Amino acid sequence: MIGHEDPRQTIVELCRRFYAQGWASGTGGGVSIRQGERVFYAPSGVAKELMDPSDIFECRLDGSCVAAPADSSLKLSACAPLFQSVYELRDAGAVIHSHSIHAVMATLICGREFRVSQLEMMKGIRGVGFYDTMIIPVIENTAYEEELVDRLRLAIKAYPSAYAVLVRRHGVYIWGQDWLEAKRHAECYDYLFDAAVRMHNLGMPLVESQGMAAFDAMSKESSASPK
Amino acid sequence: MIGHEDPRQTIVELCRRFYAQGWASGTGGGVSIRQGERVFYAPSGVAKELMDPSDIFECRLDGSCVAAPADSSLKLSACAPLFQSVYELRDAGAVIHSHSIHAVMATLICGREFRVSQLEMMKGIRGVGFYDTMIIPVIENTAYEEELVDRLRLAIKAYPSAYAVLVRRHGVYIWGQDWLEAKRHAECYDYLFDAAVRMHNLGMPLVESQGMAAFDAMSKESSASPK
Amino acid sequence: MIGHEDPRQTIVELCRRFYAQGWASGTGGGVSIRQGERVFYAPSGVAKELMDPSDIFECRLDGSCVAAPADSSLKLSACAPLFQSVYELRDAGAVIHSHSIHAVMATLICGREFRVSQLEMMKGIRGVGFYDTMIIPVIENTAYEEELVDRLRLAIKAYPSAYAVLVRRHGVYIWGQDWLEAKRHAECYDYLFDAAVRMHNLGMPLVESQGMAAFDAMSKESSASPK
Amino acid sequence: MIGHEDPRQTIVELCRRFYAQGWASGTGGGVSIRQGERVFYAPSGVAKELMDPSDIFECRLDGSCVAAPADSSLKLSACAPLFQSVYELRDAGAVIHSHSIHAVMATLICGREFRVSQLEMMKGIRGVGFYDTMIIPVIENTAYEEELVDRLRLAIKAYPSAYAVLVRRHGVYIWGQDWLEAKRHAECYDYLFDAAVRMHNLGMPLVESQGMAAFDAMSKESSASPK
Repeated sequence: MIGHEDPRQTIVELCRRFYAQGWASGTGGGVSIRQGERVFYAPSGVAKELMDPSDIFECRLDGSCVAAPADSSLKLSACAPLFQSVYELRDAGAVIHSHSIHAVMATLICGREFRVSQLEMMKGIRGVGFYDTMIIPVIENTAYEEELVDRLRLAIKAYPSAYAVLVRRHGVYIWGQDWLEAKRHAECYDYLFDAAVRMHNLGMPLVESQGMAAFDAMSKESSASPK
Repeated sequence: MIGHEDPRQTIVELCRRFYAQGWASGTGGGVSIRQGERVFYAPSGVAKELMDPSDIFECRLDGSCVAAPADSSLKLSACAPLFQSVYELRDAGAVIHSHSIHAVMATLICGREFRVSQLEMMKGIRGVGFYDTMIIPVIENTAYEEELVDRLRLAIKAYPSAYAVLVRRHGVYIWGQDWLEAKRHAECYDYLFDAAVRMHNLGMPLVESQGMAAFDAMSKESSASPK
Repeated sequence: MIGHEDPRQTIVELCRRFYAQGWASGTGGGVSIRQGERVFYAPSGVAKELMDPSDIFECRLDGSCVAAPADSSLKLSACAPLFQSVYELRDAGAVIHSHSIHAVMATLICGREFRVSQLEMMKGIRGVGFYDTMIIPVIENTAYEEELVDRLRLAIKAYPSAYAVLVRRHGVYIWGQDWLEAKRHAECYDYLFDAAVRMHNLGMPLVESQGMAAFDAMSKESSASPK
Repeated sequence: MIGHEDPRQTIVELCRRFYAQGWASGTGGGVSIRQGERVFYAPSGVAKELMDPSDIFECRLDGSCVAAPADSSLKLSACAPLFQSVYELRDAGAVIHSHSIHAVMATLICGREFRVSQLEMMKGIRGVGFYDTMIIPVIENTAYEEELVDRLRLAIKAYPSAYAVLVRRHGVYIWGQDWLEAKRHAECYDYLFDAAVRMHNLGMPLVESQGMAAFDAMSKESSASPK
């Protein structure tokens, strides 16, 4: 498999990819990776697709930095305290912050929780099965990113089986045990946000009330018979 | 024409392309190629766009593998029994599994069959003409991919002129006599799924009731006269 | 400016670009370039993004070919007689055939003509101004591409100021005096097809009834005054 | 950070990127950069993604050019007087003109002002906070680009806190203190235009009437409590 040993290089490449997908336009969004006792962060307010590895901050888990970029004008990402909360409260190895328009639109069609069921892509989220109802908490946005910390921490604690917290009218924080899982989670969640909004536009419920037994019975009767 | 002799290299390149098109995000989706008595499969649960040729499994038609990747942590794709069913029941040379959101949305606007007619892209499917009604069976999804095998086999047998089976809320399996035909079929079907949902949103019927004669008469009268 | 002297190379690069834009998926679509008395065509039924320059046919204006690809299995594009009609009836230097879903959807929301007005991108079409009503004829599709020839020729003759003919449920033929103009026309028309369908979905008329004088009067009164 | 000292090279690379995003198709759109007393412009009516640095004009702030491209067939962009107005009236270091379909659609759902509030991406615009109502003036289009100058100047003067002017049925002019800020502004505005049209399609108001206090009260009560 293609990959990188150096978390700085991985962050730079993931940011380019996320920018191309619309998750990190306008200097928004980003990604952080933990390697043992060290956490790597992008700088604040820079074009995420134009970074190179020497722009990345290396910090301790307590937030103090051990290595800053050579360019002293760069400041640590305003998301760092949010990323740090995830590392502290969950055994995460990487955290992705996305401004994907799919995430933002998903927060506009739901209340305090985003819920979907019976979509295959849910199975890309650790511990989620096809017949489960997948729930992601939605917190209200704040004027400044650092003010989000308390709400994010409460939501993380309140939803121990979720790997994401949506922020209304803002985006989403997503994590995994390493960068590959965080990336897989981010791709699956984003797909599900997109699918949910499309289903909403078709007038369809996002959570199927029919259980597994009903579905299976139905499909045994009929699914493969031409007519 | 640009192509590859080595099916491992072809799988790797097709997966990168399919990932970029949104057919294989979140480690989902994939492609398998048959070369004579050998079948080549991607590993399970890995980022499909980050594979290299040494990650590909080489198996016999009966499913037993003759060469596994050097990385012993890699496991054979959970789709392998599904791909194998297509090779057994049809004389296919390649099978593509896509999680395209167009395929999933198409399964949400139809019943046990997906039907369209009078769209030029139908002609990219072997044996289908512009005035035909193109039918693809839709099977219900299951909790585990391997449980889909029976339903998929029934659908393949019941619809001998289809080159695809849609799986509700999941995606689609598509095949062709070689990888180029499977790719062409996949691109045409995906376009048709997309077009069908757009037509549905416009309130248009997916199958034209007007036959060829009516259309031709109409167009003879009028099609090229300005007004 | 970046460009190519060799029309074979230009065709190959344009096809890759058009494939990436969704205009030539599933082996559909294509481009032809005329250079003096010679016309260059892509082969039929091949993946347009995988061609190399040696796959291109070189023909005379009467359709007879002077140089076929080394690969003798390749056949001349089924679109060749359609492209040839454009070269004969208009002084075109290049013709683009696109299966863009925007073009197909545009044919589903209009009758025998596609009409828009007051969109800046119309000005990218030779001879069209912002306050004009831009008209493109729409012909009905046929079961076989070669049967389209008569309808296409009638439409080209009937609409001498159009640089495109839409084919219902199929796509569009677009031309220009050289490949750069054909490409510009194709990009502008495609944008206008997309915009028209979006406007239709918003319930807006595609042709503004208000003339230039009314608009200017309105804007003089008000356009830049904050409120 | 990855960047360029030569504004010609920066213009060429930004144009390629903007073309890929659909902001500069059909030779439309473009970008200009100011460096001290010099302003750099792209040529008129050329494919913006095919330029190389030698195609760029170097002019004085008064509009007179000091260095024209080697290719004497190239003419200065018709947007130059519009770009020049922005340099004169604002202390801008770069101006971007985009034909993005998101910008055009945004002008079709609003009157003389485009207004949104409470979307995180607004914070990418200099001086705009999450609870502000962000306002962009919309001017009516004209038959010829140079006729837009007066309207643009009036709008720029009337809205001193905006970094963009929308042109109805045409596109948008966006600027910043340097090319990085202009690019950030352009990406954020484009996202907001897209989001606004999607919200309009969902039947949602673009400006939230609930103020910050109400939202905060609501979220304190409830945001992180599962139910």
